[in-house]
Amino acid sequence: MEIEQLIRRWADAVHTGDLDTVLTDHGDDIVMFDVPPPHEGVRGLAAYEETWPPFFAWQATGASFEIVDVDVTEGEDVAFAWALLKCGTPDEFADVPDRRLRLTIGLAKRDGRWVVTHEHHSFADTSQSS
Amino acid sequence: MEIEQLIRRWADAVHTGDLDTVLTDHGDDIVMFDVPPPHEGVRGLAAYEETWPPFFAWQATGASFEIVDVDVTEGEDVAFAWALLKCGTPDEFADVPDRRLRLTIGLAKRDGRWVVTHEHHSFADTSQSS
Repeated sequence: MEIEQLIRRWADAVHTGDLDTVLTDHGDDIVMFDVPPPHEGVRGLAAYEETWPPFFAWQATGASFEIVDVDVTEGEDVAFAWALLKCGTPDEFADVPDRRLRLTIGLAKRDGRWVVTHEHHSFADTSQSS
Repeated sequence: MEIEQLIRRWADAVHTGDLDTVLTDHGDDIVMFDVPPPHEGVRGLAAYEETWPPFFAWQATGASFEIVDVDVTEGEDVAFAWALLKCGTPDEFADVPDRRLRLTIGLAKRDGRWVVTHEHHSFADTSQSS
């Protein structure tokens, strides 16, 4: 599967709450820097899986999870991508229309297939100037 | 230069405020997701350069910028790395001892040399639970 297609399928699965598809292209050794703590990152696929049900519960209050920009740098055996997503509730976008979830994804080719081994999710910190 | 060495040299240069060395391995087309806005990222080397003087001014108040963990995934022609850094003032670490700057770096090999084309900097958001 092409990397951009893999990312779009993952984002659609996040939005529909399809946990199996969210996990399907992810490595057992994934390290995820999530929006909330832990500060040192979420380590391993089981811990990654546990982050999603609370997110799905929040999303069910009416939040979007929609890719608006994606850029893939694909090599022979390693790749990374960044993306910007509309992720928030209508109230949040009323306050800050240009708010975006910033996402970086790292991938390695294993047995001929792209596998996600790193994710970094964040919002820009608007509480301070530096 | 090895990628881990490149990252450690960059972090040392950030800490000493050596802007030329901070920029030396970075591509003209870099896209950086910085801790503060803009939400859509800092686009291009000139914009990336402009982010550093305000950071250096803040750092001069007594903040650290020290790698405590780094992990590199290096392919033939593309690579990425994540790192955790102690980045903060003594007062900030008194409040939250395990606070870490989470950093993801994307690199491409150009003319036989690793060049940084993406950086994502963030802190975990402790203001909410999801």
